[in-house]
Amino acid sequence: MTLPSSEASPELGPQPSAVPPTRRGVSRRGLLGAAGAGAAGVGAGLAGGFGLASHGPSSTAAAAAPGSAAYPFYGEHQAGIVTPAQDRLHFAAFDMVSDDRADLVTLMQDWTAAAARMTQGRDAGPFGATSGPYDAPPDDTGEAIGLPSSGLTLTFGFGPSLFRQGGRDRYGIAERQPAALRRLPHFPGDNLDPDRSDGDLCVQACADDPQVAVHAIRNLARIAFGRAAIRWSQLGFGRTSSTSTSQTTPRNLFGFKDGTMNLKAEEPSLLDSHVWVPPTSGTKDAWLSGGSYLVARRINMTIEIWDRQPLSEQEKVVGRSKAEGAPLSGGGEFTQPNFALLGSDQQPLVAADAHVRLVHPDQNKGVQLLRRGYNFVDGSTSLGRMDAGLFFLAYVVDPRTHYIPMQTKIARGDGMSEYLQHTGSALFAVPPGVAQGGYLGQALFA
Amino acid sequence: MTLPSSEASPELGPQPSAVPPTRRGVSRRGLLGAAGAGAAGVGAGLAGGFGLASHGPSSTAAAAAPGSAAYPFYGEHQAGIVTPAQDRLHFAAFDMVSDDRADLVTLMQDWTAAAARMTQGRDAGPFGATSGPYDAPPDDTGEAIGLPSSGLTLTFGFGPSLFRQGGRDRYGIAERQPAALRRLPHFPGDNLDPDRSDGDLCVQACADDPQVAVHAIRNLARIAFGRAAIRWSQLGFGRTSSTSTSQTTPRNLFGFKDGTMNLKAEEPSLLDSHVWVPPTSGTKDAWLSGGSYLVARRINMTIEIWDRQPLSEQEKVVGRSKAEGAPLSGGGEFTQPNFALLGSDQQPLVAADAHVRLVHPDQNKGVQLLRRGYNFVDGSTSLGRMDAGLFFLAYVVDPRTHYIPMQTKIARGDGMSEYLQHTGSALFAVPPGVAQGGYLGQALFA
Repeated sequence: MTLPSSEASPELGPQPSAVPPTRRGVSRRGLLGAAGAGAAGVGAGLAGGFGLASHGPSSTAAAAAPGSAAYPFYGEHQAGIVTPAQDRLHFAAFDMVSDDRADLVTLMQDWTAAAARMTQGRDAGPFGATSGPYDAPPDDTGEAIGLPSSGLTLTFGFGPSLFRQGGRDRYGIAERQPAALRRLPHFPGDNLDPDRSDGDLCVQACADDPQVAVHAIRNLARIAFGRAAIRWSQLGFGRTSSTSTSQTTPRNLFGFKDGTMNLKAEEPSLLDSHVWVPPTSGTKDAWLSGGSYLVARRINMTIEIWDRQPLSEQEKVVGRSKAEGAPLSGGGEFTQPNFALLGSDQQPLVAADAHVRLVHPDQNKGVQLLRRGYNFVDGSTSLGRMDAGLFFLAYVVDPRTHYIPMQTKIARGDGMSEYLQHTGSALFAVPPGVAQGGYLGQALFA
Repeated sequence: MTLPSSEASPELGPQPSAVPPTRRGVSRRGLLGAAGAGAAGVGAGLAGGFGLASHGPSSTAAAAAPGSAAYPFYGEHQAGIVTPAQDRLHFAAFDMVSDDRADLVTLMQDWTAAAARMTQGRDAGPFGATSGPYDAPPDDTGEAIGLPSSGLTLTFGFGPSLFRQGGRDRYGIAERQPAALRRLPHFPGDNLDPDRSDGDLCVQACADDPQVAVHAIRNLARIAFGRAAIRWSQLGFGRTSSTSTSQTTPRNLFGFKDGTMNLKAEEPSLLDSHVWVPPTSGTKDAWLSGGSYLVARRINMTIEIWDRQPLSEQEKVVGRSKAEGAPLSGGGEFTQPNFALLGSDQQPLVAADAHVRLVHPDQNKGVQLLRRGYNFVDGSTSLGRMDAGLFFLAYVVDPRTHYIPMQTKIARGDGMSEYLQHTGSALFAVPPGVAQGGYLGQALFA
């Protein structure tokens, strides 16, 4: 389905000629009580605080009801990166099923239109779930009727295979493939499932209500029909990182606080160094300026084995206390670890193979990641063990400097690796934000 | 692990002889600010309203913070049945891995103790995640530290195989197996996965925070180690039924309101007729008096096909309008459908194969179910389709009268069946509630 570039009136009345007497259309917006004429203003709300251009909550929407905070879709960067991490995730990787460049471009245009609507708590299409032509499929699936925007952000990325597949230039964009956008190498201990790895496109849907995140992915998949299809997807139920100093540090399924040292939205100069791709006009990467790279790794935890370890072993592996998240060298959660400090046994208080040591910037040429991962439980394996862990998401300026060296090191030397197994892997280039009237990745196709 | 029957002090101080200087124990209760001496009072809170004995929120806990509503664990019936349906689910079926009756009995005792704690927002064991002996595994896994009780309920059931397996009386309880507790028959169109079906035991964890529900199942699995192991489990992210008139009707993944005609907590005489097993003293079923039967069915929806259907077809299949959930014969959501009313084409406005007609009590000898299902998305299939649908949970007085006839009928004649596939199935007997000092299913083992 191709959405009209200029929308029809989003509030069509009942279709009396074809419908039974009880039929009345409703929209998410209508139920939220926002006037039709005011809806455009919701998307235009600007963030207060933090000096961020676009990704604070819209107070216009936030005033309406709990959960109705709406983040602007349009802006310099895509939302869902430095946006304060929402509680729930539905992530989907798509493969193109068409080799036609026009299909790819119109898909980006249609996804842009739908994302701009849904992130503001509106239906995916202009008719909505219940008010379109009675003999046509609705342009929204309806399960989010009555639910507010719930802080929904939709963040889109392009995988290496979109540019070249088996050496073939599928869409005339091969020469614009950044050198950094290659499949991640095989790391020691990787046990990757091809059905949970890679993809031509990705969409990260984050929201405070999982039904809103699921609704968004489902409608984007519906809109993509005939052009792209879901390759794999992953739900996450609990955020494992804070991306703002306004948030408390959550806990992962090891029971430890996670993301204490994460990059935060309130550190714009660090974001410029470690997250945003810098301006590179004139190069083949120019279209990615203001964008980022997204590393996605499905990391299973051997929950049952971990749960049988003494508290002492758990803390030694992490290098932090379980209660407070403080480094074992002393202090509180936000105290910097002292890797040189020795205990009474003349061994470092933070062990040589402790996770906190191996991932610390001081041990990694100063690199920092913007992590945005989620806890997941996908039921149980055939052995009766929880199929659970951390769906790792990190935004970085360049995976060659900011992920591959660190992961190579921790895959070999981190004591935590004994309790982990990487089962999925993907890398995407995340284009910059969209200007009003533009569409996702427009500079790539220009 | 067997928990001590009389708990040690739940608030042990630091263990200075073995721990680094930064180590301090924390507990969920401690972080919630409730005094240790007052915690017992939280569990003793009684429900206001509705004339229910036990399953309204505890105002003691509810005053503390959002999400801190706590439902009493002890009571005439188990919580999690007529309790207003919480937003999130983690359901697990377990198989016993021990043939020792004592292991089953102590497991029920240990689960009782842990459930009584966790439903009140406390750690699974008396030491908690961070305050136990430093060289022993913690008796709580820790990922719920800092999270309130979040309305957690834990509801336990016994499958047919617990009583007899291959004709064998495993635990000396075979003669107490109720006649109604048999594997459900094969229904037309069933495509059941044995790895998502049946089980010796079940636990339904419902909460308003998924991390709290997951934490509870994980800790019960940890406690069961060596006695029982998870056979299968299922997460659900959105409730699809209301079980109280205080709740709005949610939507399923067809985008329609679901559970409009569900039994509600405010209808105690209907619950006595349709949900609670009546007193049958002296019979082999006597231990189940005040309990219920739980039907669990994993029902996949063919989302992508449904989404391509015209609104007219969707509404015809359901027999209700998508917008309001009103019967196609007219009125509003709660108007009773008029199955005789004809349209201008002389066909019934509610089609002969409409779902609302086939499941209506008037078409099923008056039987009603207490539904408590959840939407699920378990990623995608290898065909790129959403592995999604409805995890159907229903509590009934007797599955032979209250589920099997209806499901037999709708599997054959319901227009909705075209868009459904049942992929998992289980039946459990749900014992009555636990009295203070007692344990789950005690009357079965007495």
